[in-house]
Amino acid sequence: MNDTTKTGAPEAGVAAMDVADWWRTEIIDMAPGAIRVRGRPIEELIGNVTFPQMIWLMLRGELPGASAAKLLEAALVAAVDHGPQAPSIAAARMAVTCGLPLNGALASAVNMLDDVHGGAGEQAVELYGLIDDAGGPEATEACLERWTTERSAFIPGFGHRFHKPVDPRAPRLLGLVDAAALEGVCTGRFAAIGRAVETTLLARKGRPVPMNIDGATAVIFAELGFPPPLARGLFCLSRSVGILAHAFEQMGQGGRNKGPTPPRYRWTYNGPNPIETDDAG
Amino acid sequence: MNDTTKTGAPEAGVAAMDVADWWRTEIIDMAPGAIRVRGRPIEELIGNVTFPQMIWLMLRGELPGASAAKLLEAALVAAVDHGPQAPSIAAARMAVTCGLPLNGALASAVNMLDDVHGGAGEQAVELYGLIDDAGGPEATEACLERWTTERSAFIPGFGHRFHKPVDPRAPRLLGLVDAAALEGVCTGRFAAIGRAVETTLLARKGRPVPMNIDGATAVIFAELGFPPPLARGLFCLSRSVGILAHAFEQMGQGGRNKGPTPPRYRWTYNGPNPIETDDAG
Amino acid sequence: MNDTTKTGAPEAGVAAMDVADWWRTEIIDMAPGAIRVRGRPIEELIGNVTFPQMIWLMLRGELPGASAAKLLEAALVAAVDHGPQAPSIAAARMAVTCGLPLNGALASAVNMLDDVHGGAGEQAVELYGLIDDAGGPEATEACLERWTTERSAFIPGFGHRFHKPVDPRAPRLLGLVDAAALEGVCTGRFAAIGRAVETTLLARKGRPVPMNIDGATAVIFAELGFPPPLARGLFCLSRSVGILAHAFEQMGQGGRNKGPTPPRYRWTYNGPNPIETDDAG
Amino acid sequence: MNDTTKTGAPEAGVAAMDVADWWRTEIIDMAPGAIRVRGRPIEELIGNVTFPQMIWLMLRGELPGASAAKLLEAALVAAVDHGPQAPSIAAARMAVTCGLPLNGALASAVNMLDDVHGGAGEQAVELYGLIDDAGGPEATEACLERWTTERSAFIPGFGHRFHKPVDPRAPRLLGLVDAAALEGVCTGRFAAIGRAVETTLLARKGRPVPMNIDGATAVIFAELGFPPPLARGLFCLSRSVGILAHAFEQMGQGGRNKGPTPPRYRWTYNGPNPIETDDAG
Repeated sequence: MNDTTKTGAPEAGVAAMDVADWWRTEIIDMAPGAIRVRGRPIEELIGNVTFPQMIWLMLRGELPGASAAKLLEAALVAAVDHGPQAPSIAAARMAVTCGLPLNGALASAVNMLDDVHGGAGEQAVELYGLIDDAGGPEATEACLERWTTERSAFIPGFGHRFHKPVDPRAPRLLGLVDAAALEGVCTGRFAAIGRAVETTLLARKGRPVPMNIDGATAVIFAELGFPPPLARGLFCLSRSVGILAHAFEQMGQGGRNKGPTPPRYRWTYNGPNPIETDDAG
Repeated sequence: MNDTTKTGAPEAGVAAMDVADWWRTEIIDMAPGAIRVRGRPIEELIGNVTFPQMIWLMLRGELPGASAAKLLEAALVAAVDHGPQAPSIAAARMAVTCGLPLNGALASAVNMLDDVHGGAGEQAVELYGLIDDAGGPEATEACLERWTTERSAFIPGFGHRFHKPVDPRAPRLLGLVDAAALEGVCTGRFAAIGRAVETTLLARKGRPVPMNIDGATAVIFAELGFPPPLARGLFCLSRSVGILAHAFEQMGQGGRNKGPTPPRYRWTYNGPNPIETDDAG
Repeated sequence: MNDTTKTGAPEAGVAAMDVADWWRTEIIDMAPGAIRVRGRPIEELIGNVTFPQMIWLMLRGELPGASAAKLLEAALVAAVDHGPQAPSIAAARMAVTCGLPLNGALASAVNMLDDVHGGAGEQAVELYGLIDDAGGPEATEACLERWTTERSAFIPGFGHRFHKPVDPRAPRLLGLVDAAALEGVCTGRFAAIGRAVETTLLARKGRPVPMNIDGATAVIFAELGFPPPLARGLFCLSRSVGILAHAFEQMGQGGRNKGPTPPRYRWTYNGPNPIETDDAG
Repeated sequence: MNDTTKTGAPEAGVAAMDVADWWRTEIIDMAPGAIRVRGRPIEELIGNVTFPQMIWLMLRGELPGASAAKLLEAALVAAVDHGPQAPSIAAARMAVTCGLPLNGALASAVNMLDDVHGGAGEQAVELYGLIDDAGGPEATEACLERWTTERSAFIPGFGHRFHKPVDPRAPRLLGLVDAAALEGVCTGRFAAIGRAVETTLLARKGRPVPMNIDGATAVIFAELGFPPPLARGLFCLSRSVGILAHAFEQMGQGGRNKGPTPPRYRWTYNGPNPIETDDAG
């Protein structure tokens, strides 16, 4: 009664349409016994396209050629893991010791791939795009200046606190881009831009600030035409593999409520009225 | 066309009702300019009920008396924090250094309050309920036996790896339950059951396995009639305060992608083909 | 001194220190059998402070007076729920039908209280602070101009797509601020600023754009001296109550993998090569 | 002093080791400029192994042959999406309208792939394992009986509320298993078990309860030797692709705080003291 009035009594067809229209997608269509993804029957995709091709199809609506998909695949392979010092990996390992199943461990961990931990690739694609729009490699210095002023003191995708002087993934990935550019799979202009950033930073700082995994995968994503947010999304997919592997390994190791450091180190308390030894039981 | 056919063309009133009915609740009713929670206008609650009373009203549909709400409040106050060695707290602190805002840090952290980290209170309410159903304190030994056989080697709510011999929160909370029982706010029978578990475990193990925060808050939740899952839910609310405080403090301390231990300790690699020192760049 | 000894050193002192120091806090100190929060023994807080006082103590390091805590409490009570149309509430209800326990439902839902859904309070505290720094209510128009230009077309904390012309929570909360200001608990200057924003928007738009729950709680948070990020944090605490209540209610209702709308409405597919009715089995 | 006692005073080398040992892994080793995954230099993997091979290597420590990896790849491709009626997909779409970036949308959504939404594959691998351990297909009826009694009324991996009579993904995936078995990539015995379950259920219920996506991918995971929890993990990886695609599409569509149904339908309130139409402003 009450509820009818509250919701109004929409007319037949209208009601059906506005509800069905509330969720709209170009990604998937279904009928009983039939699933089409981006217009393609699922059973024709299964067994016939690679997982990276499927990822591309889902995200962009078209199937990439084999070589382009291979380049994407290299980026996905490269970023799977960086060990338990990465907060996301540590969180996933802690999570399973708290009782979470793998989906929950993934959730807590992938959530952490935010602006600082997982956003560098996205930002690097943006930066490369800025430089490209401004005319390419020669515009690098000016664009870096602008980035520093308008966006952040951090140049995304360059420098590594651990891998010095070289992040071993970067030259390998750039080599693959060069090969793909020779093949005509991509233009290679974002590889040139990435290298120009590296050169400029070296000159600016007087020491190498080498391209890291985010800078290198961003070259690939930019070469392949992925918009910036998908660079973050693809990194999340890739790193999910490492998160999963570590969470599963920790399940095997056991442990309950595993903290960040061995318990006896505890933490430093800097606040008022600390507990004196004699106070404690 | 296509879509109409797919969804069928529901008749007017029907369509409205099945959509509006899809989400049903006894918790909240709204109209433009009006909000009623459990049948009470929100503006009459604001400023007139305490936050614990509101929590109780939302979860259970009725407003508790002041004394019962005070007992709930004591449990909520007691469990807010246990320091950065708790995986949830560590995760929240890591999360903000990855770029997450406070909602995101809360999410990654609260997620970890699962069966092992946050489920002990829920399990303790279940255990107390079992004992109560079996006749009360005298049934303790038999029920613990059954619990160990059917559920888990861990007796939820008892023992602490750090607070030995006593978790300072437990006796204080039990004292409040005793006082409330004298006042007639609750019966005190779950306090008796909790103490019987403690006594039985001491006899069984030959050493104290004292009631911990989960065991003590579970006594309160059971005394107040909360079903087991809400013991976990209420613990999550309480611990959210600590998670928030630590996440915010870490924001002030700064840091980027803070790992679990200082970076130079790294981790121990036990797998095949380790990197020899000479191998590294 | 004290701390060196704590952990010894790989090169003794050094290692010990850097590990224990890796996690530093002014919030909590512990020793076996002893917990102090912000320097106060936990057993003295339990039963003696209200939950809102504990929240304040944890977040800010000091215990508020009873009247200030009451004002905070009113804000916490006001924002607990806005029904299943709120994406966070819907997500929590879906989550339990996917098998998640309450901690997991809270996590998926609280995560959604991001910039758009949960950030308005934080932004409103910032906006009020801007106006206050610029001289108070008379600076409102200029500051709104600046906000629109530099930050967003959305004025945070004002306007509501459902509660027209008035969000019933706002005048009630402002009344409590006025009373508290008379008592000297706060100055009332952010209430004046909030009202000035409302007046200015009415003049600007030629129709009421009334203060909503975020705008009103932000007045309280600003009056009480909470920094902007904690406005979001406190909103998360408050809304967690509603999330929990709805998730628990849904557990009772049952359902498996409950989708957003009744299944027969499904969604509208706008992509290539749709499935024709005759195609389907 | 105080703190010394708290933590003990570890000797030099010892301290270093217990901290470094706190996080142990066989997955990844690093030195400046060098990363080895499962003992293999990362730069030799990039561009040389497929993403499914890398997933396998990370999870299990060894590189699979090309054919086995292809079979895994088919399972990963098959499960990427099931449309916005799936609670995880709806949650991801809602999440971005709340302001979350893609990592956050993934987190809220993947979290929902719990026992009911994402656990069926894991449970199906367990069920197939039970049947296999009990002697294979002939043991199916007895094992189903046991499953129903001891575990759940739901037989995981069979039946679909939408795809009747056939989930189009299942026969395609089983066809690939058959081909792989002929090739000697796997034994085919879990395909036989899966078919035996289907036959038994048909006889039991007198109507088809066909194998669904979870049942079919579980056949593949079991054939390839993945332990049950990884079936859930691999499903999470696969469905993450769909979550990402829908979240990104929703970003493009815009919307703020998008609820589950069009706002005018709202929800049905079943509690006390409903708001009468005349009450509302």
